[in-house]
Amino acid sequence: MSASGEVEAYLASERALVDAALREFLPPPEPEVPWLREAIEYSLLAPGKRLRPILALASARVCGGDLAEVLPVACAFEMIHTFSLVHDDLPAMDDDDLRRGRPTCHVQFGEPFAILAGDGLAAWAFRLVAERTPDPALASGLVCELAAGTMDMILGQVADMKWQGREVPRDTVRGIHRRKTAALLRGAVRAGAIAARAGEGALERLTAYGEAIGLAFQIADDLLDVGATSEELGKGAGKDAAKGKITYPGTFGIEESRRMARELADRAVEAALSLPGGTRLADLARYVVERKR
Amino acid sequence: MSASGEVEAYLASERALVDAALREFLPPPEPEVPWLREAIEYSLLAPGKRLRPILALASARVCGGDLAEVLPVACAFEMIHTFSLVHDDLPAMDDDDLRRGRPTCHVQFGEPFAILAGDGLAAWAFRLVAERTPDPALASGLVCELAAGTMDMILGQVADMKWQGREVPRDTVRGIHRRKTAALLRGAVRAGAIAARAGEGALERLTAYGEAIGLAFQIADDLLDVGATSEELGKGAGKDAAKGKITYPGTFGIEESRRMARELADRAVEAALSLPGGTRLADLARYVVERKR
Repeated sequence: MSASGEVEAYLASERALVDAALREFLPPPEPEVPWLREAIEYSLLAPGKRLRPILALASARVCGGDLAEVLPVACAFEMIHTFSLVHDDLPAMDDDDLRRGRPTCHVQFGEPFAILAGDGLAAWAFRLVAERTPDPALASGLVCELAAGTMDMILGQVADMKWQGREVPRDTVRGIHRRKTAALLRGAVRAGAIAARAGEGALERLTAYGEAIGLAFQIADDLLDVGATSEELGKGAGKDAAKGKITYPGTFGIEESRRMARELADRAVEAALSLPGGTRLADLARYVVERKR
Repeated sequence: MSASGEVEAYLASERALVDAALREFLPPPEPEVPWLREAIEYSLLAPGKRLRPILALASARVCGGDLAEVLPVACAFEMIHTFSLVHDDLPAMDDDDLRRGRPTCHVQFGEPFAILAGDGLAAWAFRLVAERTPDPALASGLVCELAAGTMDMILGQVADMKWQGREVPRDTVRGIHRRKTAALLRGAVRAGAIAARAGEGALERLTAYGEAIGLAFQIADDLLDVGATSEELGKGAGKDAAKGKITYPGTFGIEESRRMARELADRAVEAALSLPGGTRLADLARYVVERKR
Protein backbone atom coordinates (compact mmCIF):
# COMPACT_ATOMS: atom_id res chain seq x y z
CA MET A 1 0.00 0.00 0.00
CA SER A 2 1.29 3.48 -0.82
CA ALA A 3 2.08 5.85 2.06
CA SER A 4 -0.92 8.04 1.31
CA GLY A 5 -3.16 4.97 0.83
CA GLU A 6 -2.02 3.78 4.22
CA VAL A 7 -2.91 7.11 5.83
CA GLU A 8 -6.31 7.04 4.12
CA ALA A 9 -6.94 3.56 5.54
CA TYR A 10 -5.96 4.73 9.02
CA LEU A 11 -8.25 7.75 8.74
CA ALA A 12 -11.14 5.60 7.52
CA SER A 13 -10.75 3.18 10.39
CA GLU A 14 -10.55 5.97 12.99
CA ARG A 15 -13.54 7.65 11.39
CA ALA A 16 -15.55 4.45 11.71
CA LEU A 17 -14.60 4.22 15.39
CA VAL A 18 -15.61 7.84 15.95
CA ASP A 19 -18.87 7.49 14.02
CA ALA A 20 -19.87 4.47 16.11
CA ALA A 21 -19.05 6.37 19.31
CA LEU A 22 -20.99 9.45 18.16
CA ARG A 23 -24.00 7.24 17.55
CA GLU A 24 -23.63 5.67 20.99
CA PHE A 25 -23.21 9.06 22.67
CA LEU A 26 -26.24 10.75 21.11
CA PRO A 27 -28.75 12.24 23.56
CA PRO A 28 -31.38 9.64 24.48
CA PRO A 29 -34.56 9.51 22.40
CA GLU A 30 -37.29 11.56 24.07
CA PRO A 31 -40.60 10.13 22.92
CA GLU A 32 -42.47 13.33 23.83
CA VAL A 33 -39.89 15.66 22.29
CA PRO A 34 -38.22 13.73 19.45
CA TRP A 35 -37.42 16.85 17.42
CA LEU A 36 -34.27 17.96 19.22
CA ARG A 37 -32.50 14.64 18.82
CA GLU A 38 -33.64 14.47 15.19
CA ALA A 39 -31.98 17.78 14.36
CA ILE A 40 -28.88 16.92 16.41
CA GLU A 41 -28.56 13.53 14.75
CA TYR A 42 -29.05 15.01 11.29
CA SER A 43 -26.23 17.51 11.77
CA LEU A 44 -23.84 15.41 13.84
CA LEU A 45 -24.01 12.19 11.82
CA ALA A 46 -23.70 13.88 8.43
CA PRO A 47 -20.47 12.66 6.87
CA GLY A 48 -17.55 14.69 8.23
CA LYS A 49 -13.78 14.44 8.41
CA ARG A 50 -13.96 13.89 12.20
CA LEU A 51 -10.59 15.57 12.42
CA ARG A 52 -11.00 16.82 16.00
CA PRO A 53 -11.88 13.44 17.52
CA ILE A 54 -9.26 11.70 15.38
CA LEU A 55 -6.65 14.13 16.69
CA ALA A 56 -7.78 13.52 20.27
CA LEU A 57 -7.52 9.75 19.76
CA ALA A 58 -4.12 10.03 18.06
CA SER A 59 -2.80 12.17 20.87
CA ALA A 60 -4.14 9.76 23.50
CA ARG A 61 -2.67 6.77 21.66
CA VAL A 62 0.77 8.38 21.59
CA CYS A 63 0.54 8.89 25.35
CA GLY A 64 -0.63 5.32 25.95
CA GLY A 65 -4.13 6.29 27.04
CA ASP A 66 -7.21 4.17 27.58
CA LEU A 67 -9.80 4.63 24.80
CA ALA A 68 -12.68 4.57 27.30
CA GLU A 69 -11.25 7.71 28.93
CA VAL A 70 -10.75 9.61 25.69
CA LEU A 71 -13.73 8.66 23.48
CA PRO A 72 -16.33 10.80 25.30
CA VAL A 73 -14.23 13.95 25.12
CA ALA A 74 -13.13 13.18 21.55
CA CYS A 75 -16.79 13.01 20.52
CA ALA A 76 -17.59 16.10 22.57
CA PHE A 77 -15.13 18.09 20.45
CA GLU A 78 -16.96 16.94 17.32
CA MET A 79 -20.26 18.00 18.91
CA ILE A 80 -18.89 21.46 19.70
CA HIS A 81 -17.54 21.72 16.16
CA THR A 82 -20.94 20.71 14.76
CA PHE A 83 -22.74 23.16 17.04
CA SER A 84 -20.54 25.94 15.69
CA LEU A 85 -21.29 24.91 12.09
CA VAL A 86 -25.04 24.88 12.74
CA HIS A 87 -24.96 28.37 14.25
CA ASP A 88 -22.46 29.71 11.67
CA ASP A 89 -24.75 28.63 8.86
CA LEU A 90 -27.76 30.52 10.27
CA PRO A 91 -29.32 33.28 8.13
CA ALA A 92 -28.19 35.92 10.65
CA MET A 93 -24.61 34.63 10.42
CA ASP A 94 -23.13 33.18 7.19
CA ASP A 95 -26.52 32.22 5.71
CA ASP A 96 -25.35 28.98 4.11
CA ASP A 97 -27.63 26.39 2.54
CA LEU A 98 -25.24 23.48 2.12
CA ARG A 99 -23.09 21.70 4.70
CA ARG A 100 -21.42 18.29 4.62
CA GLY A 101 -23.22 17.70 1.33
CA ARG A 102 -26.69 18.21 2.85
CA PRO A 103 -29.09 21.12 3.33
CA THR A 104 -28.01 23.02 6.44
CA CYS A 105 -29.85 22.42 9.70
CA HIS A 106 -31.99 25.56 9.45
CA VAL A 107 -32.94 24.79 5.86
CA GLN A 108 -34.01 21.31 6.93
CA PHE A 109 -35.71 22.08 10.25
CA GLY A 110 -36.26 25.84 10.35
CA GLU A 111 -34.31 28.56 12.07
CA PRO A 112 -35.63 28.20 15.65
CA PHE A 113 -34.81 24.50 15.70
CA ALA A 114 -31.35 25.08 14.27
CA ILE A 115 -30.63 27.58 17.05
CA LEU A 116 -31.88 25.10 19.65
CA ALA A 117 -30.12 22.13 18.03
CA GLY A 118 -26.83 24.02 18.25
CA ASP A 119 -27.52 24.92 21.87
CA GLY A 120 -28.43 21.31 22.61
CA LEU A 121 -25.28 19.96 20.97
CA ALA A 122 -23.14 22.24 23.13
CA ALA A 123 -24.91 21.36 26.38
CA TRP A 124 -24.83 17.68 25.53
CA ALA A 125 -21.10 17.79 24.77
CA PHE A 126 -20.37 19.03 28.29
CA ARG A 127 -22.72 16.54 29.86
CA LEU A 128 -21.11 13.71 27.91
CA VAL A 129 -17.63 14.50 29.19
CA ALA A 130 -18.79 14.99 32.78
CA GLU A 131 -20.94 11.89 32.81
CA ARG A 132 -19.10 9.36 30.67
CA THR A 133 -15.47 10.00 31.51
CA PRO A 134 -14.78 7.19 33.98
CA ASP A 135 -12.63 9.27 36.37
CA PRO A 136 -14.53 12.34 37.74
CA ALA A 137 -11.35 14.21 38.67
CA LEU A 138 -10.12 13.78 35.10
CA ALA A 139 -13.53 14.81 33.74
CA SER A 140 -13.37 18.30 35.19
CA GLY A 141 -9.99 18.95 33.55
CA LEU A 142 -11.42 17.79 30.25
CA VAL A 143 -14.48 20.00 30.64
CA CYS A 144 -12.09 22.93 31.20
CA GLU A 145 -10.20 22.10 28.03
CA LEU A 146 -13.40 21.70 26.02
CA ALA A 147 -14.88 24.93 27.36
CA ALA A 148 -11.66 26.89 26.81
CA GLY A 149 -11.53 25.76 23.18
CA THR A 150 -15.21 26.62 22.74
CA MET A 151 -14.80 30.10 24.23
CA ASP A 152 -11.80 30.81 22.01
CA MET A 153 -13.70 29.58 18.97
CA ILE A 154 -16.59 31.90 19.77
CA LEU A 155 -14.21 34.83 20.33
CA GLY A 156 -12.72 34.05 16.92
CA GLN A 157 -16.15 34.13 15.31
CA VAL A 158 -16.95 37.42 16.99
CA ALA A 159 -13.70 38.93 15.74
CA ASP A 160 -14.24 37.47 12.26
CA MET A 161 -17.69 39.03 12.16
CA LYS A 162 -16.50 42.44 13.40
CA TRP A 163 -13.69 42.68 10.86
CA GLN A 164 -15.68 41.41 7.88
CA GLY A 165 -15.29 43.64 4.84
CA ARG A 166 -12.62 45.80 6.50
CA GLU A 167 -8.86 46.05 5.97
CA VAL A 168 -7.34 43.81 8.64
CA PRO A 169 -3.82 44.05 10.12
CA ARG A 170 -1.86 40.85 9.41
CA ASP A 171 -1.41 40.04 13.09
CA THR A 172 -5.15 40.30 13.58
CA VAL A 173 -5.72 37.78 10.79
CA ARG A 174 -3.41 35.37 12.57
CA GLY A 175 -5.19 36.01 15.87
CA ILE A 176 -8.61 35.40 14.34
CA HIS A 177 -7.60 32.11 12.71
CA ARG A 178 -5.85 30.99 15.84
CA ARG A 179 -9.04 31.46 17.83
CA LYS A 180 -11.66 30.57 15.26
CA THR A 181 -10.22 27.20 14.27
CA ALA A 182 -6.85 26.42 15.80
CA ALA A 183 -8.06 26.66 19.41
CA LEU A 184 -10.53 23.79 19.10
CA LEU A 185 -8.07 21.59 17.20
CA ARG A 186 -5.35 22.32 19.74
CA GLY A 187 -7.89 21.68 22.50
CA ALA A 188 -8.74 18.27 21.00
CA VAL A 189 -5.07 17.31 20.87
CA ARG A 190 -4.53 18.48 24.44
CA ALA A 191 -7.68 16.76 25.70
CA GLY A 192 -6.44 13.46 24.24
CA ALA A 193 -3.17 13.88 26.09
CA ILE A 194 -4.87 14.90 29.35
CA ALA A 195 -7.28 11.95 29.11
CA ALA A 196 -4.22 9.72 28.71
CA ARG A 197 -2.59 11.32 31.76
CA ALA A 198 0.36 12.59 29.72
CA GLY A 199 3.34 14.08 31.52
CA GLU A 200 4.07 17.78 31.28
CA GLY A 201 6.76 17.42 28.64
CA ALA A 202 4.52 15.44 26.31
CA LEU A 203 1.59 17.80 26.89
CA GLU A 204 3.78 20.76 26.01
CA ARG A 205 4.97 19.20 22.76
CA LEU A 206 1.43 18.15 21.86
CA THR A 207 0.21 21.66 22.54
CA ALA A 208 2.79 23.02 20.09
CA TYR A 209 1.73 20.35 17.63
CA GLY A 210 -1.95 21.22 18.06
CA GLU A 211 -1.32 24.94 17.64
CA ALA A 212 0.62 24.40 14.41
CA ILE A 213 -1.74 21.86 12.87
CA GLY A 214 -4.73 23.98 13.86
CA LEU A 215 -3.48 27.07 12.09
CA ALA A 216 -2.26 25.03 9.09
CA PHE A 217 -5.72 23.51 8.81
CA GLN A 218 -7.47 26.87 8.60
CA ILE A 219 -5.03 28.23 6.02
CA ALA A 220 -5.53 25.05 3.95
CA ASP A 221 -9.27 25.55 4.31
CA ASP A 222 -9.02 29.11 3.04
CA LEU A 223 -6.92 27.91 0.09
CA LEU A 224 -9.44 25.17 -0.72
CA ASP A 225 -12.23 27.73 -0.77
CA VAL A 226 -10.33 29.69 -3.41
CA GLY A 227 -9.67 26.71 -5.66
CA ALA A 228 -12.37 24.07 -5.20
CA THR A 229 -15.95 23.54 -6.37
CA SER A 230 -18.93 23.15 -4.01
CA GLU A 231 -19.22 19.51 -5.00
CA GLU A 232 -15.64 18.84 -3.94
CA LEU A 233 -16.11 20.68 -0.62
CA GLY A 234 -19.61 19.53 0.32
CA LYS A 235 -20.32 23.16 1.17
CA GLY A 236 -20.44 26.42 -0.74
CA ALA A 237 -17.10 27.28 -2.44
CA GLY A 238 -15.60 30.67 -3.25
CA LYS A 239 -17.88 32.18 -0.63
CA ASP A 240 -15.22 33.58 1.65
CA ALA A 241 -14.15 36.31 -0.75
CA ALA A 242 -17.74 37.02 -1.83
CA LYS A 243 -18.64 37.67 1.79
CA GLY A 244 -15.63 39.82 2.59
CA LYS A 245 -14.39 37.11 4.99
CA ILE A 246 -10.98 37.39 6.57
CA THR A 247 -8.76 34.79 4.89
CA TYR A 248 -5.07 34.04 4.57
CA PRO A 249 -5.00 34.12 0.74
CA GLY A 250 -6.96 37.39 0.85
CA THR A 251 -4.43 38.94 3.21
CA PHE A 252 -1.12 37.28 2.33
CA GLY A 253 -1.75 36.04 -1.24
CA ILE A 254 -2.04 32.44 -2.40
CA GLU A 255 1.67 31.62 -2.72
CA GLU A 256 2.62 33.05 0.65
CA SER A 257 -0.34 31.29 2.26
CA ARG A 258 0.76 27.97 0.77
CA ARG A 259 4.25 28.55 2.11
CA MET A 260 2.94 29.33 5.58
CA ALA A 261 0.70 26.26 5.61
CA ARG A 262 3.66 24.07 4.64
CA GLU A 263 5.87 25.68 7.27
CA LEU A 264 3.26 25.13 9.97
CA ALA A 265 2.79 21.53 8.88
CA ASP A 266 6.57 21.05 9.07
CA ARG A 267 6.54 22.48 12.57
CA ALA A 268 3.73 20.11 13.55
CA VAL A 269 5.58 17.15 12.01
CA GLU A 270 8.69 18.07 13.94
CA ALA A 271 6.78 18.28 17.24
CA ALA A 272 5.09 14.96 16.46
CA LEU A 273 8.32 13.16 15.66
CA SER A 274 9.88 14.41 18.90
CA LEU A 275 7.47 12.02 20.66
CA PRO A 276 8.01 8.26 20.65
CA GLY A 277 5.39 6.75 18.33
CA GLY A 278 4.49 10.13 16.85
CA THR A 279 4.42 9.06 13.19
CA ARG A 280 0.62 8.96 13.01
CA LEU A 281 0.45 12.52 14.30
CA ALA A 282 3.02 13.49 11.68
CA ASP A 283 0.89 11.81 8.99
CA LEU A 284 -2.11 13.79 10.16
CA ALA A 285 -0.20 17.06 9.92
CA ARG A 286 0.77 16.32 6.33
CA TYR A 287 -2.75 15.19 5.47
CA VAL A 288 -4.19 18.44 6.78
CA VAL A 289 -2.31 20.61 4.29
CA GLU A 290 -2.48 18.18 1.37
CA ARG A 291 -6.17 17.25 1.55
CA LYS A 292 -8.50 18.09 -1.33
CA ARG A 293 -11.60 18.84 0.84
CA MET B 1 -39.76 44.20 60.45
CA SER B 2 -42.75 42.44 58.86
CA ALA B 3 -42.33 38.84 57.68
CA SER B 4 -42.45 39.85 54.03
CA GLY B 5 -40.10 42.79 54.66
CA GLU B 6 -37.71 40.35 56.26
CA VAL B 7 -37.81 38.06 53.22
CA GLU B 8 -37.26 41.05 50.93
CA ALA B 9 -34.18 42.01 52.95
CA TYR B 10 -32.83 38.47 52.75
CA LEU B 11 -33.41 38.37 48.98
CA ALA B 12 -31.72 41.75 48.53
CA SER B 13 -28.67 40.64 50.49
CA GLU B 14 -28.38 37.34 48.59
CA ARG B 15 -28.84 39.22 45.32
CA ALA B 16 -25.97 41.53 46.22
CA LEU B 17 -23.77 38.53 46.97
CA VAL B 18 -24.70 36.91 43.66
CA ASP B 19 -24.22 40.13 41.68
CA ALA B 20 -20.74 40.57 43.11
CA ALA B 21 -19.88 36.96 42.25
CA LEU B 22 -21.27 37.30 38.72
CA ARG B 23 -19.04 40.32 38.22
CA GLU B 24 -16.03 38.41 39.53
CA PHE B 25 -16.80 35.39 37.36
CA LEU B 26 -17.22 37.25 34.06
CA PRO B 27 -15.00 36.06 31.21
CA PRO B 28 -11.68 37.98 31.22
CA PRO B 29 -11.47 41.16 29.14
CA GLU B 30 -9.97 40.36 25.73
CA PRO B 31 -8.37 43.56 24.47
CA GLU B 32 -8.42 42.33 20.86
CA VAL B 33 -11.98 41.02 21.02
CA PRO B 34 -13.82 43.11 23.62
CA TRP B 35 -17.24 42.69 21.98
CA LEU B 36 -18.14 39.26 23.34
CA ARG B 37 -17.63 40.23 26.95
CA GLU B 38 -19.49 43.48 26.35
CA ALA B 39 -22.59 41.66 25.15
CA ILE B 40 -22.30 39.03 27.89
CA GLU B 41 -21.89 41.66 30.58
CA TYR B 42 -24.80 43.68 29.24
CA SER B 43 -27.17 40.72 29.40
CA LEU B 44 -25.85 39.03 32.52
CA LEU B 45 -25.55 42.08 34.75
CA ALA B 46 -28.92 43.56 33.83
CA PRO B 47 -31.01 43.61 36.99
CA GLY B 48 -32.59 40.18 37.53
CA LYS B 49 -34.24 38.26 40.34
CA ARG B 50 -31.23 35.88 40.55
CA LEU B 51 -33.63 33.21 41.69
CA ARG B 52 -31.57 30.27 40.43
CA PRO B 53 -28.34 31.23 42.22
CA ILE B 54 -30.27 32.26 45.32
CA LEU B 55 -31.91 28.83 45.37
CA ALA B 56 -28.54 27.13 44.97
CA LEU B 57 -27.11 29.15 47.85
CA ALA B 58 -30.14 28.51 50.05
CA SER B 59 -29.95 24.81 49.38
CA ALA B 60 -26.21 24.74 50.12
CA ARG B 61 -26.71 26.74 53.32
CA VAL B 62 -29.33 24.27 54.58
CA CYS B 63 -26.84 21.45 53.99
CA GLY B 64 -24.03 23.32 55.73
CA GLY B 65 -22.00 23.86 52.57
CA ASP B 66 -18.99 26.06 51.93
CA LEU B 67 -19.86 29.15 49.85
CA ALA B 68 -16.63 28.86 47.83
CA GLU B 69 -17.78 25.47 46.54
CA VAL B 70 -21.27 26.60 45.58
CA LEU B 71 -20.82 30.16 44.24
CA PRO B 72 -19.34 29.18 40.85
CA VAL B 73 -22.12 26.72 40.06
CA ALA B 74 -24.77 29.09 41.45
CA CYS B 75 -23.55 31.78 39.04
CA ALA B 76 -23.29 29.24 36.22
CA PHE B 77 -27.02 28.56 36.55
CA GLU B 78 -27.69 32.29 36.16
CA MET B 79 -25.46 32.32 33.07
CA ILE B 80 -27.36 29.42 31.53
CA HIS B 81 -30.64 31.14 32.35
CA THR B 82 -29.39 34.35 30.73
CA PHE B 83 -28.13 32.48 27.67
CA SER B 84 -31.61 31.00 27.25
CA LEU B 85 -33.20 34.46 27.52
CA VAL B 86 -30.83 35.92 24.92
CA HIS B 87 -31.60 33.14 22.45
CA ASP B 88 -35.35 33.07 23.26
CA ASP B 89 -35.59 36.77 22.51
CA LEU B 90 -34.05 36.40 19.02
CA PRO B 91 -36.16 37.42 16.00
CA ALA B 92 -36.31 33.78 14.84
CA MET B 93 -37.63 32.74 18.27
CA ASP B 94 -39.90 34.99 20.39
CA ASP B 95 -38.73 38.23 18.75
CA ASP B 96 -38.78 40.31 21.93
CA ASP B 97 -37.40 43.85 22.23
CA LEU B 98 -37.41 44.31 25.99
CA ARG B 99 -35.81 42.21 28.73
CA ARG B 100 -35.01 43.05 32.33
CA GLY B 101 -36.05 46.61 31.56
CA ARG B 102 -33.49 47.03 28.75
CA PRO B 103 -33.43 46.52 24.99
CA THR B 104 -32.77 42.84 24.32
CA CYS B 105 -29.27 41.72 23.39
CA HIS B 106 -29.93 41.50 19.64
CA VAL B 107 -31.59 44.93 19.62
CA GLN B 108 -28.53 46.35 21.34
CA PHE B 109 -25.74 44.46 19.55
CA GLY B 110 -27.32 42.90 16.46
CA GLU B 111 -28.48 39.37 15.84
CA PRO B 112 -25.14 37.64 15.10
CA PHE B 113 -23.64 38.95 18.33
CA ALA B 114 -26.68 37.94 20.34
CA ILE B 115 -26.39 34.38 19.00
CA LEU B 116 -22.68 34.34 19.86
CA ALA B 117 -23.20 36.02 23.26
CA GLY B 118 -25.67 33.27 24.17
CA ASP B 119 -23.25 30.61 22.99
CA GLY B 120 -20.44 32.25 24.93
CA LEU B 121 -22.48 32.47 28.13
CA ALA B 122 -23.21 28.74 27.95
CA ALA B 123 -19.61 27.74 27.28
CA TRP B 124 -18.37 30.06 29.99
CA ALA B 125 -20.84 28.66 32.53
CA PHE B 126 -19.39 25.18 32.08
CA ARG B 127 -15.85 26.43 32.21
CA LEU B 128 -16.58 28.36 35.39
CA VAL B 129 -17.83 25.29 37.22
CA ALA B 130 -15.00 23.07 36.00
CA GLU B 131 -12.30 25.64 36.73
CA ARG B 132 -13.45 27.44 39.86
CA THR B 133 -15.02 24.67 41.92
CA PRO B 134 -12.22 23.90 44.38
CA ASP B 135 -12.69 20.09 44.33
CA PRO B 136 -12.35 18.63 40.78
CA ALA B 137 -14.24 15.44 41.65
CA LEU B 138 -17.14 17.57 42.86
CA ALA B 139 -16.89 19.78 39.78
CA SER B 140 -17.75 17.01 37.34
CA GLY B 141 -20.91 16.13 39.28
CA LEU B 142 -21.91 19.80 39.17
CA VAL B 143 -21.22 20.02 35.44
CA CYS B 144 -23.52 17.01 35.00
CA GLU B 145 -26.26 18.71 36.97
CA LEU B 146 -25.86 21.97 35.06
CA ALA B 147 -25.81 20.24 31.69
CA ALA B 148 -28.81 18.06 32.54
CA GLY B 149 -30.84 21.13 33.50
CA THR B 150 -29.72 22.90 30.34
CA MET B 151 -30.67 19.97 28.09
CA ASP B 152 -34.08 19.70 29.72
CA MET B 153 -34.63 23.42 29.33
CA ILE B 154 -33.79 23.22 25.63
CA LEU B 155 -36.08 20.21 25.19
CA GLY B 156 -38.82 22.27 26.83
CA GLN B 157 -38.24 25.14 24.44
CA VAL B 158 -38.35 22.78 21.48
CA ALA B 159 -41.64 21.30 22.69
CA ASP B 160 -43.04 24.77 23.42
CA MET B 161 -42.17 25.86 19.90
CA LYS B 162 -43.63 22.75 18.26
CA TRP B 163 -46.93 23.01 20.09
CA GLN B 164 -47.36 26.76 19.68
CA GLY B 165 -50.82 27.69 18.39
CA ARG B 166 -52.11 24.11 18.69
CA GLU B 167 -54.51 22.48 21.15
CA VAL B 168 -52.27 20.83 23.74
CA PRO B 169 -53.14 17.88 25.99
CA ARG B 170 -52.99 18.89 29.67
CA ASP B 171 -50.26 16.40 30.50
CA THR B 172 -48.15 17.83 27.69
CA VAL B 173 -48.52 21.33 29.15
CA ARG B 174 -47.22 20.03 32.46
CA GLY B 175 -44.35 18.26 30.71
CA ILE B 176 -43.38 21.38 28.78
CA HIS B 177 -43.36 23.60 31.87
CA ARG B 178 -41.47 21.01 33.86
CA ARG B 179 -38.73 20.98 31.24
CA LYS B 180 -38.75 24.58 30.12
CA THR B 181 -38.46 26.15 33.55
CA ALA B 182 -38.69 23.71 36.42
CA ALA B 183 -35.67 21.62 35.34
CA LEU B 184 -33.19 24.46 35.69
CA LEU B 185 -34.63 25.63 39.02
CA ARG B 186 -34.61 22.07 40.34
CA GLY B 187 -31.07 21.70 38.99
CA ALA B 188 -29.95 24.83 40.86
CA VAL B 189 -31.42 23.50 44.11
CA ARG B 190 -29.79 20.11 43.58
CA ALA B 191 -26.45 21.64 42.60
CA GLY B 192 -26.41 23.63 45.85
CA ALA B 193 -26.98 20.43 47.79
CA ILE B 194 -24.38 18.48 45.83
CA ALA B 195 -21.82 21.27 46.27
CA ALA B 196 -22.51 21.07 50.00
CA ARG B 197 -22.03 17.29 49.92
CA ALA B 198 -25.58 16.65 51.13
CA GLY B 199 -26.59 13.12 52.10
CA GLU B 200 -29.03 11.15 49.96
CA GLY B 201 -32.04 11.86 52.14
CA ALA B 202 -31.52 15.61 52.03
CA LEU B 203 -30.83 15.55 48.29
CA GLU B 204 -34.06 13.66 47.71
CA ARG B 205 -36.13 16.14 49.71
CA LEU B 206 -34.43 19.07 48.02
CA THR B 207 -35.13 17.54 44.63
CA ALA B 208 -38.84 17.33 45.51
CA TYR B 209 -38.64 20.93 46.74
CA GLY B 210 -36.94 22.07 43.53
CA GLU B 211 -39.43 20.27 41.31
CA ALA B 212 -42.39 21.86 43.11
CA ILE B 213 -40.97 25.39 43.31
CA GLY B 214 -39.85 25.17 39.69
CA LEU B 215 -43.28 24.35 38.38
CA ALA B 216 -44.96 26.84 40.74
CA PHE B 217 -42.63 29.53 39.42
CA GLN B 218 -43.60 28.97 35.80
CA ILE B 219 -47.32 28.94 36.58
CA ALA B 220 -46.91 32.18 38.55
CA ASP B 221 -45.01 33.60 35.56
CA ASP B 222 -47.85 32.70 33.21
CA LEU B 223 -50.34 34.30 35.60
CA LEU B 224 -48.23 37.48 35.82
CA ASP B 225 -48.17 37.73 32.05
CA VAL B 226 -51.96 37.72 32.02
CA GLY B 227 -52.35 40.42 34.67
CA ALA B 228 -49.34 42.74 34.64
CA THR B 229 -48.07 45.64 32.55
CA SER B 230 -44.73 45.67 30.74
CA GLU B 231 -43.43 48.26 33.15
CA GLU B 232 -44.15 46.00 36.11
CA LEU B 233 -42.53 42.99 34.42
CA GLY B 234 -39.52 44.65 32.77
CA LYS B 235 -40.43 42.66 29.66
CA GLY B 236 -43.37 42.54 27.26
CA ALA B 237 -46.67 41.65 29.01
CA GLY B 238 -49.72 39.83 27.64
CA LYS B 239 -47.51 38.41 24.91
CA ASP B 240 -47.98 34.74 25.71
CA ALA B 241 -51.58 34.62 24.56
CA ALA B 242 -50.89 36.88 21.57
CA LYS B 243 -48.21 34.43 20.40
CA GLY B 244 -50.29 31.29 20.96
CA LYS B 245 -47.87 30.23 23.72
CA ILE B 246 -48.62 27.21 25.84
CA THR B 247 -49.58 28.52 29.29
CA TYR B 248 -51.26 27.22 32.40
CA PRO B 249 -54.01 29.90 32.46
CA GLY B 250 -54.62 29.26 28.75
CA THR B 251 -55.04 25.54 29.37
CA PHE B 252 -56.49 25.27 32.88
CA GLY B 253 -58.03 28.74 33.40
CA ILE B 254 -56.85 31.43 35.80
CA GLU B 255 -58.53 30.18 38.97
CA GLU B 256 -57.40 26.58 38.55
CA SER B 257 -53.87 27.77 37.71
CA ARG B 258 -53.78 29.87 40.89
CA ARG B 259 -54.93 26.87 42.87
CA MET B 260 -52.22 24.67 41.34
CA ALA B 261 -49.50 27.24 41.99
CA ARG B 262 -50.55 27.48 45.65
CA GLU B 263 -50.67 23.70 45.96
CA LEU B 264 -47.19 23.34 44.51
CA ALA B 265 -45.89 26.09 46.78
CA ASP B 266 -47.41 24.25 49.75
CA ARG B 267 -45.69 21.08 48.65
CA ALA B 268 -42.37 22.93 48.37
CA VAL B 269 -42.88 24.51 51.81
CA GLU B 270 -43.58 21.09 53.27
CA ALA B 271 -40.42 19.60 51.73
CA ALA B 272 -38.42 22.61 52.95
CA LEU B 273 -39.70 22.39 56.50
CA SER B 274 -38.86 18.68 56.65
CA LEU B 275 -35.21 19.78 56.63
CA PRO B 276 -33.58 21.31 59.73
CA GLY B 277 -33.13 25.01 59.04
CA GLY B 278 -35.39 24.93 56.00
CA THR B 279 -37.37 28.10 56.79
CA ARG B 280 -35.52 30.20 54.19
CA LEU B 281 -36.34 27.68 51.50
CA ALA B 282 -39.96 27.79 52.65
CA ASP B 283 -39.89 31.60 52.44
CA LEU B 284 -38.58 31.36 48.90
CA ALA B 285 -41.38 29.00 47.88
CA ARG B 286 -44.00 31.43 49.16
CA TYR B 287 -42.23 34.37 47.52
CA VAL B 288 -42.24 32.63 44.16
CA VAL B 289 -46.04 32.43 43.97
CA GLU B 290 -46.75 35.76 45.65
CA ARG B 291 -44.28 37.96 43.74
CA LYS B 292 -45.55 40.80 41.58
CA ARG B 293 -42.88 40.52 38.86
